[in-house]
Amino acid sequence: MLVVMYKTATEDDVAAVCKLIEEMGLNSHPMPGAIRTAIGATGNKSRVDADRIMAQSGVKEIIHVTKPYKLVSREFYPEDSVIDVGGVPVGGPNLVTIAGPCAVESYDQCMIIAEAVAKAGAHMFRGGAYKPRTSPYSFQGLREEGLKILSQVRDKFGLKIVTEAVDTEVLEVVADYADVIQIGARNMQNFSLLRKAGRQDKAVLLKRGMSATVEEFLMAAEYIMSEGNRKVILCERGVRTFADHTRNTLDLSAVPFCKRTSHLPIVVDPSHGTGRKDKVLPLSRAGIAAGADGLIVEVHHDPANAMSDGPQSITPEMFEKLMGETAAIGAVLGRK
Amino acid sequence: MLVVMYKTATEDDVAAVCKLIEEMGLNSHPMPGAIRTAIGATGNKSRVDADRIMAQSGVKEIIHVTKPYKLVSREFYPEDSVIDVGGVPVGGPNLVTIAGPCAVESYDQCMIIAEAVAKAGAHMFRGGAYKPRTSPYSFQGLREEGLKILSQVRDKFGLKIVTEAVDTEVLEVVADYADVIQIGARNMQNFSLLRKAGRQDKAVLLKRGMSATVEEFLMAAEYIMSEGNRKVILCERGVRTFADHTRNTLDLSAVPFCKRTSHLPIVVDPSHGTGRKDKVLPLSRAGIAAGADGLIVEVHHDPANAMSDGPQSITPEMFEKLMGETAAIGAVLGRK
Amino acid sequence: MLVVMYKTATEDDVAAVCKLIEEMGLNSHPMPGAIRTAIGATGNKSRVDADRIMAQSGVKEIIHVTKPYKLVSREFYPEDSVIDVGGVPVGGPNLVTIAGPCAVESYDQCMIIAEAVAKAGAHMFRGGAYKPRTSPYSFQGLREEGLKILSQVRDKFGLKIVTEAVDTEVLEVVADYADVIQIGARNMQNFSLLRKAGRQDKAVLLKRGMSATVEEFLMAAEYIMSEGNRKVILCERGVRTFADHTRNTLDLSAVPFCKRTSHLPIVVDPSHGTGRKDKVLPLSRAGIAAGADGLIVEVHHDPANAMSDGPQSITPEMFEKLMGETAAIGAVLGRK
Amino acid sequence: MLVVMYKTATEDDVAAVCKLIEEMGLNSHPMPGAIRTAIGATGNKSRVDADRIMAQSGVKEIIHVTKPYKLVSREFYPEDSVIDVGGVPVGGPNLVTIAGPCAVESYDQCMIIAEAVAKAGAHMFRGGAYKPRTSPYSFQGLREEGLKILSQVRDKFGLKIVTEAVDTEVLEVVADYADVIQIGARNMQNFSLLRKAGRQDKAVLLKRGMSATVEEFLMAAEYIMSEGNRKVILCERGVRTFADHTRNTLDLSAVPFCKRTSHLPIVVDPSHGTGRKDKVLPLSRAGIAAGADGLIVEVHHDPANAMSDGPQSITPEMFEKLMGETAAIGAVLGRK
Repeated sequence: MLVVMYKTATEDDVAAVCKLIEEMGLNSHPMPGAIRTAIGATGNKSRVDADRIMAQSGVKEIIHVTKPYKLVSREFYPEDSVIDVGGVPVGGPNLVTIAGPCAVESYDQCMIIAEAVAKAGAHMFRGGAYKPRTSPYSFQGLREEGLKILSQVRDKFGLKIVTEAVDTEVLEVVADYADVIQIGARNMQNFSLLRKAGRQDKAVLLKRGMSATVEEFLMAAEYIMSEGNRKVILCERGVRTFADHTRNTLDLSAVPFCKRTSHLPIVVDPSHGTGRKDKVLPLSRAGIAAGADGLIVEVHHDPANAMSDGPQSITPEMFEKLMGETAAIGAVLGRK
Repeated sequence: MLVVMYKTATEDDVAAVCKLIEEMGLNSHPMPGAIRTAIGATGNKSRVDADRIMAQSGVKEIIHVTKPYKLVSREFYPEDSVIDVGGVPVGGPNLVTIAGPCAVESYDQCMIIAEAVAKAGAHMFRGGAYKPRTSPYSFQGLREEGLKILSQVRDKFGLKIVTEAVDTEVLEVVADYADVIQIGARNMQNFSLLRKAGRQDKAVLLKRGMSATVEEFLMAAEYIMSEGNRKVILCERGVRTFADHTRNTLDLSAVPFCKRTSHLPIVVDPSHGTGRKDKVLPLSRAGIAAGADGLIVEVHHDPANAMSDGPQSITPEMFEKLMGETAAIGAVLGRK
Repeated sequence: MLVVMYKTATEDDVAAVCKLIEEMGLNSHPMPGAIRTAIGATGNKSRVDADRIMAQSGVKEIIHVTKPYKLVSREFYPEDSVIDVGGVPVGGPNLVTIAGPCAVESYDQCMIIAEAVAKAGAHMFRGGAYKPRTSPYSFQGLREEGLKILSQVRDKFGLKIVTEAVDTEVLEVVADYADVIQIGARNMQNFSLLRKAGRQDKAVLLKRGMSATVEEFLMAAEYIMSEGNRKVILCERGVRTFADHTRNTLDLSAVPFCKRTSHLPIVVDPSHGTGRKDKVLPLSRAGIAAGADGLIVEVHHDPANAMSDGPQSITPEMFEKLMGETAAIGAVLGRK
Repeated sequence: MLVVMYKTATEDDVAAVCKLIEEMGLNSHPMPGAIRTAIGATGNKSRVDADRIMAQSGVKEIIHVTKPYKLVSREFYPEDSVIDVGGVPVGGPNLVTIAGPCAVESYDQCMIIAEAVAKAGAHMFRGGAYKPRTSPYSFQGLREEGLKILSQVRDKFGLKIVTEAVDTEVLEVVADYADVIQIGARNMQNFSLLRKAGRQDKAVLLKRGMSATVEEFLMAAEYIMSEGNRKVILCERGVRTFADHTRNTLDLSAVPFCKRTSHLPIVVDPSHGTGRKDKVLPLSRAGIAAGADGLIVEVHHDPANAMSDGPQSITPEMFEKLMGETAAIGAVLGRK
């Protein structure tokens, strides 16, 4: 940690900051410069809560050197984590594909789509039984009935199930039925939900929040891991920017950043990341080319009549093409 | 609603869209243009779920004319809502000031600060008993013990209490102790929490999410109101942008926008909105000048030793100055 | 400057970086920490170009302590600069108001508007003779004919003239006619234009770029000053964000930031800052309340027939109200 | 174009807007709805300047259906443009690679790098002779001496030359030496420069501005084309967002968007797009996978001693790997 003092800070100000640093159990290194003094603080094993220092007289700025995450960090676990989801490995050399409708609408809808995506080679089936919707007047999902349909998909096609837990109330019932508990972008800093997910014995797919820095994203994963659950799958799904030609701006540089900083696997969601079906295929290819460990894609057999997110759902035919092209690109990178 | 067709759309495509619009109980108005056809859809009393239309062949874009909110809209309630918080009116010609520490740290800390802010003329006391923190290793609040301290502040100084409910589990106990339930920026789209807050008989202070459009912000208020609770106080607290000289970018244009679009009162939070104590006073003045109905400000008697958010907390002396200057500016606008 | 090394950096890496720092004429301060080593570099009087250090083996990050600006900095000139524009002082205790149409359309249009704004108390008249337009097919301005009309406005009403120089070709002719040369947001990093403006003997109004950090904004002012022209007036006019209820997001926290960091005066442009006439009055008040040294506002006697920016132009009646309210707010802050 | 009226607009307001639309030579289609009236305007062959309508009484919002660009639009030229740069085709099925240092530093530096990138298969050489720098105190380039070095690179290795024209003064001399004139991100809306580039008989590489929407980007290309120069190569180089783990956020969805909307070729700049050398390879692969027509990459044989942008420059060895991997990914998409 570096404490930058104002040009006008007095020697007493500097001494007081050094004293406080020492009281916190750290070593202080004052460095008088041509214009101002900066004070290095060393000896901390994790990030120091610097608010007390920041509030001292004469302090201009605090600069953190040590990053705040531990368990998610590659400095702690140098190898790639490979997460086992009922026999399907996520991470390492493997590519995983998760596909399905935005919302579970009916038994028939799920079976039609599941058959198609299973045939095309998908490993897991996605579909929302509980839906977070911007408007209270929109369709909110089939709830537990939807979860039952999802478990029938697993029974029939062997696809693992990924579905969202929208709050702490439904987390346990979701965990009962699902193979992977999804935590949505709007809930990325719902810390109660993260903690509770951290106490389940199921993998968690954590979506990046719409305005979350990558550091905050990894800290949210840290919340889950700090409760004991090490099976976290990260998911880049686009961030909010001024750009208005897509629903969100897919930030693919987050993929190599997370892979370098953390040992956790990361998948890309090109459906929410763009919001338009004609962008799903190119951005799926780009995600795998950037080094992602897999994709989560919305597929619907009849997008024109989907109950939600029709505009960003691709058809089974487009999905088949996607599987072929992403596999070929993955092969260039030695992925299987 | 306006449906814009691709230049290449066929007459059959146009006819199919018109038919679907009519099936939805609306009237269709095809308008062939020099380059492409657009189709107006009228007759809806609220916003139409357009995903099914968007997914039709030949459809390029859907443009919504009717806004999705109802209960929050000034078109439904033309007069300013004035919310009564135990005798303190929020909205209308009144200015309200909410002040206190970021976190409830101890009985003594609260009493010292409460005495100072009450003396300076604050109407309500803020302080977090439950704290949402980016890191799982940071101080998480005194929990119910903190709520008890807050109720002692009310007993002793007559200040109404505003404190955050971080999840549905703690919402009811917070509602038991508080006069106003705060919903934080990170929870603005925690729909389960919004719904539950909508079933309480307490006012709710709803903070704008860090990357929420004003429309999404009002839709979050709509969630609360749709459950029956009309006592919603909006709070602008800054949004996330590329600008790095402040923690967030306070978007004061949201104030006149919300006042025009909605009947609900809106307050400004210059502490989170800027993250730096030397910006709190100028942005407080600016918030009132922009037409806000009040302020929520972090005050600490000893910012250098605050357990959280010390850098953005102002001292009681600065708060007294703030009260004087904002009252004078309010007077220019006929506020009291 | 602080050089942060990777955890995996070797002692040789650290030694090489220290050697390079010393070669650059600075002092190095290696600080071995619990997890990694950081190296302080001191002795520089201005910001060091750190790319060479960044590219060394084992270097993770460079953190700059010294800010890159000099002449614009309040550390160099502690007093407020007061810029004399033909007898009108800008900065210090004074409030200045600049008003007029977006574009100079005709002699009559300018005379009608100038008479109205002069009567209401404006000090300067704005109007574009050269217009930067997003589309090549839009109205591009009356050019030198427009400048002549502006000088007639000055002759008749005594208003000082502010008008934009869109490129280096027209800069000199603009400087011949204008009292203040405006540099627009899109040109904030047109360094050739900045340098040439720095060689004129006229004040320069520099608008913040749509995605410029405040540091980049001040560096653009530094370009002008580095050529010898000290008469720079900063202008906050909104930045580009995801928020879509206004054309730009007016960043009023830039006002106290610039006032603290720099001695230069700063004015606020609520017309471009919001893009909607019903937001101009509240944000004008807010700008003055935040501590701005003045306003630049678009006024048109017939907004419905304005050739550009009609939606954000206010009428002379609204301008009169604006002058009254902002003067009253300025008085609260001791401005005249 | 759709004109949305306020709920409170009178019949006279609606009639006045219809009359104005008819006066503008268009047809009006009033559509009274359940809540408000909207008015369609058809018959325009290009985008209408709507400011006059927006400023009418009772008008809430204008919605444009027709896009403002013509010459850049795929609706006007349905086939991919293939631009011939001295025998090197850009666009269509071809992949092009442009590589070289950020700045031309010396004859030797350029020859070393040129030899390496030519050997690895690059088609063009990039290098700045004129440098736009945020600080007036940074290295500003070798100017015409640099251009001469670049032409020697062409003579010796047959690489076509891409170099930036930073202002209208130097545009002609740059056009004399270069095969492709680069217009930088900061100049994307320097309309004088765009127009002048549109009058040259050389291809232009146009970089997207840091906060430009894709529509504004295409309008900047329209400026160049409207002067007669059809040889425009678009370049996505990242936009400015809140995300701070990279220098910019590379917006790869712009690639399929531009390919669909326009016939012009588009290349990706992963060096400026990320600002970090360890992100260049993954984002280069991702760019090609997203459908880009090529790459422009910073390569330096000695990044640790580069005079600018060392942190984002890759070595010749990394570049060779990049060429191999992107060619293999291109092959998956049928590119050569």
